[in-house]
Amino acid sequence: MSQKSYNQFWLEGLVPAVFTPFQEDGELNLSKIDEYCEFLLKNNIKAVFVNGTTGEGKSMTKEERKIVAEKWIFTASGRLKVVVNVSGLNVRESIELAKHAVHIRADAIACLPPLFFKPNSIESLVDHCKMVADAAPSLPFYYYHLPAMTGVELKMEDFLITAKNKIPNMTGLKFASKDLGDLIGCLFAGKFNILCGCDEQLMGNLVMGAHGAVGTLYNFMPQVFHRLLQHLSNGEMEMAREEQIRAQKVLRLMLKHGHSLGGNVAAVKPMMALVGLDLGPPRHPMRPMTVDELIDFQRDVDLIGFKDWNPANFL
Amino acid sequence: MSQKSYNQFWLEGLVPAVFTPFQEDGELNLSKIDEYCEFLLKNNIKAVFVNGTTGEGKSMTKEERKIVAEKWIFTASGRLKVVVNVSGLNVRESIELAKHAVHIRADAIACLPPLFFKPNSIESLVDHCKMVADAAPSLPFYYYHLPAMTGVELKMEDFLITAKNKIPNMTGLKFASKDLGDLIGCLFAGKFNILCGCDEQLMGNLVMGAHGAVGTLYNFMPQVFHRLLQHLSNGEMEMAREEQIRAQKVLRLMLKHGHSLGGNVAAVKPMMALVGLDLGPPRHPMRPMTVDELIDFQRDVDLIGFKDWNPANFL
Amino acid sequence: MSQKSYNQFWLEGLVPAVFTPFQEDGELNLSKIDEYCEFLLKNNIKAVFVNGTTGEGKSMTKEERKIVAEKWIFTASGRLKVVVNVSGLNVRESIELAKHAVHIRADAIACLPPLFFKPNSIESLVDHCKMVADAAPSLPFYYYHLPAMTGVELKMEDFLITAKNKIPNMTGLKFASKDLGDLIGCLFAGKFNILCGCDEQLMGNLVMGAHGAVGTLYNFMPQVFHRLLQHLSNGEMEMAREEQIRAQKVLRLMLKHGHSLGGNVAAVKPMMALVGLDLGPPRHPMRPMTVDELIDFQRDVDLIGFKDWNPANFL
Amino acid sequence: MSQKSYNQFWLEGLVPAVFTPFQEDGELNLSKIDEYCEFLLKNNIKAVFVNGTTGEGKSMTKEERKIVAEKWIFTASGRLKVVVNVSGLNVRESIELAKHAVHIRADAIACLPPLFFKPNSIESLVDHCKMVADAAPSLPFYYYHLPAMTGVELKMEDFLITAKNKIPNMTGLKFASKDLGDLIGCLFAGKFNILCGCDEQLMGNLVMGAHGAVGTLYNFMPQVFHRLLQHLSNGEMEMAREEQIRAQKVLRLMLKHGHSLGGNVAAVKPMMALVGLDLGPPRHPMRPMTVDELIDFQRDVDLIGFKDWNPANFL
Repeated sequence: MSQKSYNQFWLEGLVPAVFTPFQEDGELNLSKIDEYCEFLLKNNIKAVFVNGTTGEGKSMTKEERKIVAEKWIFTASGRLKVVVNVSGLNVRESIELAKHAVHIRADAIACLPPLFFKPNSIESLVDHCKMVADAAPSLPFYYYHLPAMTGVELKMEDFLITAKNKIPNMTGLKFASKDLGDLIGCLFAGKFNILCGCDEQLMGNLVMGAHGAVGTLYNFMPQVFHRLLQHLSNGEMEMAREEQIRAQKVLRLMLKHGHSLGGNVAAVKPMMALVGLDLGPPRHPMRPMTVDELIDFQRDVDLIGFKDWNPANFL
Repeated sequence: MSQKSYNQFWLEGLVPAVFTPFQEDGELNLSKIDEYCEFLLKNNIKAVFVNGTTGEGKSMTKEERKIVAEKWIFTASGRLKVVVNVSGLNVRESIELAKHAVHIRADAIACLPPLFFKPNSIESLVDHCKMVADAAPSLPFYYYHLPAMTGVELKMEDFLITAKNKIPNMTGLKFASKDLGDLIGCLFAGKFNILCGCDEQLMGNLVMGAHGAVGTLYNFMPQVFHRLLQHLSNGEMEMAREEQIRAQKVLRLMLKHGHSLGGNVAAVKPMMALVGLDLGPPRHPMRPMTVDELIDFQRDVDLIGFKDWNPANFL
Repeated sequence: MSQKSYNQFWLEGLVPAVFTPFQEDGELNLSKIDEYCEFLLKNNIKAVFVNGTTGEGKSMTKEERKIVAEKWIFTASGRLKVVVNVSGLNVRESIELAKHAVHIRADAIACLPPLFFKPNSIESLVDHCKMVADAAPSLPFYYYHLPAMTGVELKMEDFLITAKNKIPNMTGLKFASKDLGDLIGCLFAGKFNILCGCDEQLMGNLVMGAHGAVGTLYNFMPQVFHRLLQHLSNGEMEMAREEQIRAQKVLRLMLKHGHSLGGNVAAVKPMMALVGLDLGPPRHPMRPMTVDELIDFQRDVDLIGFKDWNPANFL
Repeated sequence: MSQKSYNQFWLEGLVPAVFTPFQEDGELNLSKIDEYCEFLLKNNIKAVFVNGTTGEGKSMTKEERKIVAEKWIFTASGRLKVVVNVSGLNVRESIELAKHAVHIRADAIACLPPLFFKPNSIESLVDHCKMVADAAPSLPFYYYHLPAMTGVELKMEDFLITAKNKIPNMTGLKFASKDLGDLIGCLFAGKFNILCGCDEQLMGNLVMGAHGAVGTLYNFMPQVFHRLLQHLSNGEMEMAREEQIRAQKVLRLMLKHGHSLGGNVAAVKPMMALVGLDLGPPRHPMRPMTVDELIDFQRDVDLIGFKDWNPANFL
């Protein structure tokens, strides 16, 4: 079996950052992943991002994260590319997960900066990424730029310029920042695969040059975004905007309901049940909706017209 | 002479936020505005934004701001539309400047939130804007959304939805935020004139639906952006990006040099001299470049290739 | 009449940052200042801080600020020292107010940094202060350090070390930061008059070396703080803490009620009516309490036991 | 052997947050802990805080943290109380470390909030702490309040009021916030053991009512702080301040040198070598000083007079 090579790796289109299915008691609900995988395939999804923010990877133990990554790779069985988020609290934890990703034959890895002691220079961030990337030298490496949650606000253009000579398997970025000036800087910094990480400004990202997108909303409204991509490619900007505004409507719902639930994931995970896949509650420090909150939420979902959008092909 | 009406007012294309010319001793250098105006006209500019952040309006007294606004209106003499930024420290100061704008027959006004005690709710911000807009009822009113400097981070979509029923002359926004999700929300909130305020992500703004742009770079590289607009309208995305990356290159220069000068305006004002118009030093708390700093700056300007971009038609 | 000299100026004890009395319609209510002054004198107050944050100086026009400062000086007639906060939006506005303070024979002036374009270095901040201080060379000058509202987070120890050789009338600081490490640094930086600006940690400030305090709570509960000072001077720490906790109780009330009113001043100004002096509503962007809110507020004031504290000697 | 009880647990005086000794290659250097323990005992230290921020616990794997905690308990052998910081990336990781702390017979545990998904309400934070505290029901539990690094800015007074009825072994706080108003609120909220976590404002904390202190500087200048405590207890405030200013001098050195090293621990760990204990380099994302940086650092240490302070009793 031939070695996978990071040289040929390139993601385009929509990459859902998949939720992690939990049981009511908070434990993993692995068997749900089979259905989840079929659902995504039926919606023309070609790749997934596992154990990311949406997947609550940071609320899971290392052991759980390994199991979930393995399950996705086994279930996808080559039909979906699997990018595993290996970021832990510090570089040693991330290295362990990166090695595991090699072992289970992930298609690529992604990593955040360390999460307590923060790198405060390009050099330090590159060092961190190099240590993780070197632990999985056969895999494409993506840096996951999420300044609003990590507090690491360095310019990615500078990062890539420094990283490209030091990290052979540096492949690209999950760019979850709103700074499109920096995004276009990245695109001119070299041949890197730049993936939009802000679903609500996907159009802007793509026109500025992003190649694809990793995000939450592609889980439960992939058809909306497939149409957006098609309109954009046809130069039908008004029609593309009609789809794009839908992301903003969902985002606003998420912000409205997320605060009292302790986090935004708790306010979008229930959307999966609406497209036929109940993936269970979020984990602490988030909490699931009460029955009343769920009724209120569903009313809001109806109000924005979600069901009329033909959001997804159901199983 | 007929009353100007806010009903017919709509800005498109590039609106430079003009610099204020100062003498070496820091006092106003009004006569420079004549040349400046001719320069902009020669570059197909149709409107200017006076006494804004670029114009260091907040470093001027009320009296100086009135003189400068008047001078632009007199000089433009209908050839350029003149939007006057009337925002002062508090609503009373802004109202005085709004009344003056009516008096001098400005084409429109724009206003920030109060700058010390900050509105912390949509209602409070709408109240502020209403008081200012009501002081100039014949003029189109733009809210100037600049969260990074004002600290007022409210969602503009919510603002417009509330404002539209309360402020008859509410016309639109100078949207100087990177949140394109909120921008598209604004566009679907009603018929408002949304103007991009982040030069470095202009393409993204326009594709998401912004109608035009108010900014700094349109002063000294208008031809770059005119071409960008043309490419975008032709669907030539790659060529548009080639122009867009130039904004990012200038922005990076600005950030590199701006910090030690006490602010970004101090690091772009010298660009005007490069296109033939020396507009003098910035005001405190910024400082002009020393001779050595200027040499260093010009070397950087050459390095990014500014002169080869055909940035502007010279006088 | 002899020249006042900044050399002999030194504040100790409690300096209320006085509220500005407004009428129901928001206009100045100057005559209230007569009573206010008698009230403070009856409570052993020796100095006031006029047009500060508590006084909503930033919501007033320059002309109003001049009138209010003049009224206090006239009314106090030497019985209270009057420190006038002269800070405007920019250095030119502050200079004008500083000159006026000289003209009306204020006892001292205080100034914030410029409020829109912010100094980003010690040098720039010292330059700003020097320009203002030089406009009132006969008056003691205090820098008002309020990082949470101005965003200027420079270390005051560094500021004083640089300022002392450049600003002859540099007298001290209103130190409204919680960083007591920096406070003790200031005390060892030279002979400066350091005034605590955080009422809720007055004890800590005094023990670390602050000489006095400028604040809001000294307006309506001066007797609580006079007792605190006495206990501290007697070494009765437990008893001092019993008084100090009362500041925290009021602060919590202020935070609870202030948000919906648009600012904290709106939630403490009604305390003045409870000690016999109705000073009217706050100005926009704050709003006065509704009748229901006032009932709710008074219930909370009763709950913390305010009336049993013997907070002030009534007129 | 009798069960340790959280009922009788109470810390006073100085509790060093101990550094973790690493070898040049970054691996644990456990044997150094023997000497370190003797050094602390010789300096009248009665308790230590293990795997905290100073100890770079967040840069270690769970396995390493267990080994280090165990080594301290074994070495201390009852001569020092050992508080183990059990906080991991999420509650499950923290629970595992809490159980281990019971197993190795730690004297107490301390915990931060989860470090990626942050609790945004008192209830959520109490839930988190309860889950961790319940995993070590026989041990005293301290919440470690470190808002500047965790971003969790909730008021501790509110936290304690809610926690006291829900967490039987809730014992107190490591209060590493500068908000002394909240600190005094905590002291009046119930019988909790409040430990100052800001070495540079220790005096202020103690006077406001803190019972002791957990910090970095107590490692290498314990005698300075023992004297400070003695002066405070004697009512000799001026003499206490003479000692307190020394903390500020070291802090300023730390900030000066820490940034380029990637973090503050890297700039104080070398202080240990100056008192006779070389504890090796910091871990990534920090880096050790170069030879030149070390020379520069030592010059600065000499300049502030560190050696003349009689900072510690050497081994």
